[in-house]
Amino acid sequence: MAKNLDKIFKPESIAMVGASNVPAKWGSFLLVNLLAGGYPRERIFPVNPREKAIHGLPAYPSVSALPEAPDLAVVTTPAAAVGGVLEECARRGIRNAVVISSNFSEVGEEGASLERGLVDIGRRHGLTVVGPNTMGVVNAGHRLYAVGAPVQLRPGTISFVSQSGNVGANMLGWTMNQGIGFGKFVGSGNEALLDASDFIDYFGEDEETSLILAYLEGVEDGRALMEVISRTARRKPVVVLKSGRSEEGSRAAMSHTGSLAGRDEIYDAAFTQAGAVRVDTSQEMLDLAKSFTRLPLPSGDRLGIITLGGGWGVLATDAAAMAGLRLAKLDDGVREVCDRLLPPYWSHSNPVDLVGNIYMETHLAIMEAMAASPQVDALVVLGSLGTGTIIGLNVLVSQQLIMEMSMDAMKSFFMELRERNLRLLARAKELMNAYHKPILFVEMQFIGEENLRDLEAGETVIFTAPEKAATILAKMLRYRRYLERDGTTKQ
Amino acid sequence: MAKNLDKIFKPESIAMVGASNVPAKWGSFLLVNLLAGGYPRERIFPVNPREKAIHGLPAYPSVSALPEAPDLAVVTTPAAAVGGVLEECARRGIRNAVVISSNFSEVGEEGASLERGLVDIGRRHGLTVVGPNTMGVVNAGHRLYAVGAPVQLRPGTISFVSQSGNVGANMLGWTMNQGIGFGKFVGSGNEALLDASDFIDYFGEDEETSLILAYLEGVEDGRALMEVISRTARRKPVVVLKSGRSEEGSRAAMSHTGSLAGRDEIYDAAFTQAGAVRVDTSQEMLDLAKSFTRLPLPSGDRLGIITLGGGWGVLATDAAAMAGLRLAKLDDGVREVCDRLLPPYWSHSNPVDLVGNIYMETHLAIMEAMAASPQVDALVVLGSLGTGTIIGLNVLVSQQLIMEMSMDAMKSFFMELRERNLRLLARAKELMNAYHKPILFVEMQFIGEENLRDLEAGETVIFTAPEKAATILAKMLRYRRYLERDGTTKQ
Repeated sequence: MAKNLDKIFKPESIAMVGASNVPAKWGSFLLVNLLAGGYPRERIFPVNPREKAIHGLPAYPSVSALPEAPDLAVVTTPAAAVGGVLEECARRGIRNAVVISSNFSEVGEEGASLERGLVDIGRRHGLTVVGPNTMGVVNAGHRLYAVGAPVQLRPGTISFVSQSGNVGANMLGWTMNQGIGFGKFVGSGNEALLDASDFIDYFGEDEETSLILAYLEGVEDGRALMEVISRTARRKPVVVLKSGRSEEGSRAAMSHTGSLAGRDEIYDAAFTQAGAVRVDTSQEMLDLAKSFTRLPLPSGDRLGIITLGGGWGVLATDAAAMAGLRLAKLDDGVREVCDRLLPPYWSHSNPVDLVGNIYMETHLAIMEAMAASPQVDALVVLGSLGTGTIIGLNVLVSQQLIMEMSMDAMKSFFMELRERNLRLLARAKELMNAYHKPILFVEMQFIGEENLRDLEAGETVIFTAPEKAATILAKMLRYRRYLERDGTTKQ
Repeated sequence: MAKNLDKIFKPESIAMVGASNVPAKWGSFLLVNLLAGGYPRERIFPVNPREKAIHGLPAYPSVSALPEAPDLAVVTTPAAAVGGVLEECARRGIRNAVVISSNFSEVGEEGASLERGLVDIGRRHGLTVVGPNTMGVVNAGHRLYAVGAPVQLRPGTISFVSQSGNVGANMLGWTMNQGIGFGKFVGSGNEALLDASDFIDYFGEDEETSLILAYLEGVEDGRALMEVISRTARRKPVVVLKSGRSEEGSRAAMSHTGSLAGRDEIYDAAFTQAGAVRVDTSQEMLDLAKSFTRLPLPSGDRLGIITLGGGWGVLATDAAAMAGLRLAKLDDGVREVCDRLLPPYWSHSNPVDLVGNIYMETHLAIMEAMAASPQVDALVVLGSLGTGTIIGLNVLVSQQLIMEMSMDAMKSFFMELRERNLRLLARAKELMNAYHKPILFVEMQFIGEENLRDLEAGETVIFTAPEKAATILAKMLRYRRYLERDGTTKQ
């Protein structure tokens, strides 16, 4: 059974201890972000002995003076005062706290001594405490943004624990920019009482979480972590970015959080054994987060590739082979469609090269045939999305050279292009539902980041370089294989 | 001596044979892009037997009917007519041609036979011919855009030969979007008479080219290619994206261009021996293109890292170690500055963790000390760029919650932020000039793609993920080491 952290992630009321009106202080950030996120104003109780009101809310001089016992205390007071605040919380009946305050074990022996004090207090009173030295907690579905970064997330089912506040904050910002739906976030900070394993365990049992991300630098109890991942990975993917791969990285991690990173090969083997999906970079973590939550798992390693031009097909094939995937054989169904729609010299093998064919009907028919083929476990579609953009632009440029083109004509061209793209994506979605195999798109016509997000609409996955899709598919397959080995998936 | 291709890349007049008014035809694209690129209208001679004028230019019924012999013919007629066109060009005194037309050896035996015909004609008349089946040629500095993609490049000193038209066109589009200065481009197409080696050789002797990019799928004469690269790499970096790394990729390449890819290990060893810098992905090629042209080469493997927060420092360290770089030792000069400006618990080792310090003076002073240190060969600065964005946004959000904020105040905040960033980048440039070591920035405050390009201004390199900077530096170092081994660089 995971520790119950419901009051941390779904508090019905919050005391902000150390809340401040001074804009550049954490006591201000936190409250401002909480308000901006839409948490009910009347359920927030700022505590500050020197102010009557903080950011428009009535303030209380102390925790003891609060009119009720809120579910959660978010603490931003100086380190030396935190112990006293927690004692006061316990007396007032507040059993859950997020300690944002820093200057604890991360700054040396004096701070470490203060932190041991927190552990004592927490254990004595049975408190549930996040931190200290944490970036905070988020629950997008609950409008809870008790966090130092000014983020507003698209609500979703991905939950994330980070042993680094800045890695956490940046990842949240990137998911925001990329339109990736997010549920819960916690910076585990110095992990005085709750550590990364506790959060993974909680997210594992959390019905609202379908995918778990973890950024780890070092773990005190490796066995406990692997046990937690092992029972969690059976239910949902656990994607881990673990730093300290190199000796130098381990030393840097030690200097950062004081944690012992441990030998990387041991971690690597243990992660594999436990069913975690390990990634190498923050960007890969984001790509995988998107893909796991939007696409069905591939059921095998036979990849189909459709490409608008040969070169990218070759590069995608290379990437797939390096990642351990095989090229699917083309069956008669696919051959028949290609023979009918493509010129006689078509590639006659996978990748299927559309040699610049711009007719959407051709793209749709070949995508359908490949998705339906029992030879194909997953599909990558290179360049179909946005097909016609370059030709359209050529036509536009030519018309502009000859006569002044109207803004309306420009607009209608791009609207039509958008409609074509949406049609392709909608059909892919139907095919994924029908055949339970992932279809990944790679857009290569420079339609722009903003348009990409518009097309993805939080539902499909569009890459901008062909090499990435293969790597991501291989990692998804690895997870599927783990489930099969584990007996969770029969198919 | 490289073959003289000046008339291909710097023609003073061009015949467009097969020029067309029909917007979706290559004969239209090519002419439109040439006009849009600013090539002098009066120096273009469209040839089309059925039209009096093409896109507003007077048309001629045949090559023989041209009023003069242009430097270059760009041919878009059907495949069967190309041989005749080249014969006619030779008679009219046109000695250089770019054959865009496809349906040659890439479509089977009939096409291959036509292509052998072109080779005969070319050899017999001593013609210099690019293609057939090429995307075209570009020379941004010459306003020459005889190419199928509607691109307008930022003029620069990078030249690129691609054995795939679609890889070429996409790379050009990306350089355009990323503000990377570009000089010459050629799609080598079916390489009937001129192959990738010829273009690399020409770019190698070209005074306007400082860096050469090559996308290769297969090479007939591997020895000739390696000899060309070997003599070229002594003068300027040659960055190679070679597909067919895997057996499957080789087969796909064969099916695409009919070229034999060859065993990858042999290529890999030969590239290293010849001094080429091999990359794994198209994105890495772009990053390296930017870095080679904007930054000094690192003179050793000792990397200094400055980070706004610990976690990214650890990830960057890992990436550096995996790429074969070492962490630089901090000398007394750096320690003295850090002791003075950072809290007593600062990391005391590399990476130097600024623990969220937002004062630009601190960032500048530590960057200066690290750049000046004889222990440091290269510097990666994580998070300094854009420092204050998050805090500023927090302040903005807080002010908006309390009172309506004026657009002017918003604007002035972002203007000030831009000034801070520009100051940091300008100082980095001075330091690179003074100490001849590269400084790479990683921006992690989500200031947006457009703002990034504005800040780079074609002069500095800003990454958006810390892992990339280390990989790129390692490849730059590999080239530097090649020069040292080769005796070209004494230092």
